Amino acid sequence: MADGVAADVAPEAEKKMAGTKKAKVIFQPSGKSAHFPVGTPILDAARELGVNIESICGGRGKCGRCQISVATGHFAKFGVLSTQENISARGPVEQRFRKVRGLDENRRLSCVSTIEGDLVVDVPAASIIAGQTIRKDGSTANMVRNPALKLCYVELTPPDLHTPVGDADRLKDIICHDFSLPDIHIPFNMLAKIQKTLASANWCVTACLDLSPHTPELIAIFPGFSDRLLGIAFDIGSTTVAAHLVDLMSAQILASGGRANPQIRFGEDLMSRVSYVMMNDDGQEKLTAAIRGCVNELVDELLEKTNADRAHLLEAVFVANPVMQHLFLGLDPTPLGLAPFNPAISSSVRAGAAELSLDLGRGARIYFLPIVAGHVGADAAAVMLFERPDKTDAPILIVDVGTNAEIMLWNGKKIFA
Amino acid sequence: MADGVAADVAPEAEKKMAGTKKAKVIFQPSGKSAHFPVGTPILDAARELGVNIESICGGRGKCGRCQISVATGHFAKFGVLSTQENISARGPVEQRFRKVRGLDENRRLSCVSTIEGDLVVDVPAASIIAGQTIRKDGSTANMVRNPALKLCYVELTPPDLHTPVGDADRLKDIICHDFSLPDIHIPFNMLAKIQKTLASANWCVTACLDLSPHTPELIAIFPGFSDRLLGIAFDIGSTTVAAHLVDLMSAQILASGGRANPQIRFGEDLMSRVSYVMMNDDGQEKLTAAIRGCVNELVDELLEKTNADRAHLLEAVFVANPVMQHLFLGLDPTPLGLAPFNPAISSSVRAGAAELSLDLGRGARIYFLPIVAGHVGADAAAVMLFERPDKTDAPILIVDVGTNAEIMLWNGKKIFA
Repeated sequence: MADGVAADVAPEAEKKMAGTKKAKVIFQPSGKSAHFPVGTPILDAARELGVNIESICGGRGKCGRCQISVATGHFAKFGVLSTQENISARGPVEQRFRKVRGLDENRRLSCVSTIEGDLVVDVPAASIIAGQTIRKDGSTANMVRNPALKLCYVELTPPDLHTPVGDADRLKDIICHDFSLPDIHIPFNMLAKIQKTLASANWCVTACLDLSPHTPELIAIFPGFSDRLLGIAFDIGSTTVAAHLVDLMSAQILASGGRANPQIRFGEDLMSRVSYVMMNDDGQEKLTAAIRGCVNELVDELLEKTNADRAHLLEAVFVANPVMQHLFLGLDPTPLGLAPFNPAISSSVRAGAAELSLDLGRGARIYFLPIVAGHVGADAAAVMLFERPDKTDAPILIVDVGTNAEIMLWNGKKIFA
Repeated sequence: MADGVAADVAPEAEKKMAGTKKAKVIFQPSGKSAHFPVGTPILDAARELGVNIESICGGRGKCGRCQISVATGHFAKFGVLSTQENISARGPVEQRFRKVRGLDENRRLSCVSTIEGDLVVDVPAASIIAGQTIRKDGSTANMVRNPALKLCYVELTPPDLHTPVGDADRLKDIICHDFSLPDIHIPFNMLAKIQKTLASANWCVTACLDLSPHTPELIAIFPGFSDRLLGIAFDIGSTTVAAHLVDLMSAQILASGGRANPQIRFGEDLMSRVSYVMMNDDGQEKLTAAIRGCVNELVDELLEKTNADRAHLLEAVFVANPVMQHLFLGLDPTPLGLAPFNPAISSSVRAGAAELSLDLGRGARIYFLPIVAGHVGADAAAVMLFERPDKTDAPILIVDVGTNAEIMLWNGKKIFA
């Protein structure tokens, strides 16, 4: 309850509906609370308090991401009596959703349920953006789900002779409006797809935004409502390549796979592959094509295993040592073969999957984690991000015994690699 | 002199060099003035006062863009005696520039000349970013040169075993530092070119930035110092296509050309071309290829005429009616053929020239002006921007009599098209 907020009245709501009856609402587990006018949608109240309940459909009762439940009883700590009568009864939108998609008896859609009296609202972890996910595969650390991609379902009004505004312009306006974004960028290569999809889908579409640039970018568009979003994570080792296909809406791993790095035929260890590049004019090209081909094969394998639609696979994340990173990105690895071992790029790389000839969903983005130094790669950076040795005072030694060994030492003040 | 600023002492300079001798400097024609410590470079003084003197080389005395001259004599209005003794004598950098590139007797490089006493400094229009350009071709309106692209010459320190930072990261850092930018974006497709150019050019390169996105974007890189930047402007009419090749550093037109729109063979007027698209599966593709081919031919013709290097042609600007705009951008024009005449996009479009199969310099950008309505195009928008009927109170009627006629009426309050 350390970060609980107990503003007496939410200022925005107060201005809008001064004089109406108010009720106290407490959101759990954050403990954030305030008084809101009776009739306020619970999703709006949550947003005003900074409780990040997810919503794809912009509050249309379509996506079912914004589920909450009411904790009933007398809560002396908050001074409220929370009852099922204090939330609005299920309306037609929610009843339809329950029938078509299913909804637990005690769950409610917060976008179409309003505050009718004092409430203690439980927000399940799955409804929270940046919520914690408990992994079932034995890993002890919990992960925070906060994907760079966001789905936005919108319904445009059909075009009209009197407002001669472009389809793409109207799409941009409604996304910014419905999802409270100051601006989004629509890349040129999306315009033809937007024109076609809007007209064929009766002006109701789901857009996928990449939130990582300063101005969020529209990278994909689907006809009608869609709540499917997949990502894939790769660890490109010198000897083996491992991949996990992840459901980005639940942060669950759907399938995993691995195979030998096909570059082995050009050299067992990294330095012999760098030599191959130095001594053959088309060496770099061949090694790049080999590893990208291997990644594409793993993508195909995992999509097939899970019967998933490639169109929804819009994010891929990579770690590798610097030589593999250079070869995968199509950069010359030979400077890494001799002092001063300067990499072409050491910070993270964001790019379109198509720019790397990767066969993911149309518009998919890739993210390559930063590398640490000439021979300490993004895999080491990822381990440090996950284990966070710097969060403890005790000295920690992390050793990655692969084809090459990396050693990271945390002495309580600084990390050595 | 309305916007003259007469702060007594520039605050930044004061902090740095408190106690040293100061001199009064007045920049003309803006009239901005302040007292600066003796020894301050004139370019630094100008920047501190918001006088936008251009510089490509970051003050290294290489580009010659930052020329100024000293107005000598007693200026009672300012209370100063401005003499040639009050500016530092020509140093070795400026003497070398004079010998190699030439420099008028009365001109000085403001980046390597320092303040030695009171000065009245004349800043020629050509040295000012967003400076006015007097057109010689009979047009009465003056144009303000303020290109979206900016050249930045930088000298990196060679890579070093002890700072294992990527080439691209170091390039980004020095550009941000030397040109006072908070951040720049390096697109993925520039990484290989950056790696190669830096290593081959001994770590001295000229980068071209596109300043139009929120975060300026690096779009091209040249070995060593370069101060050549070209743009090309197209008016794509239904019947004829006109082009002007422009020197973006001086805003002078280098060559012009025109030819018939090759789409004429698919239909004389716009509506018959839209019909052709409706009735032929590959109709849109053919019409798009035809007009892009014509644009590429004009690019070739003007580059050849002026013996210019394609690599420096990094900006192209287009106006057209909405049907031509759709066909050129590869969008379906058929919605423009029937009510409600909704365009795919009505706002401006920024894209990579390569995305439209245009053969400009590598990394070149295109800009398509916004269209006004279903059949009132970007050409009309450009005319309105140039003539600015809204800046006068008198009613104005603008008529464009082309293959189709557009009429714009300004009634003193609103523009009708």
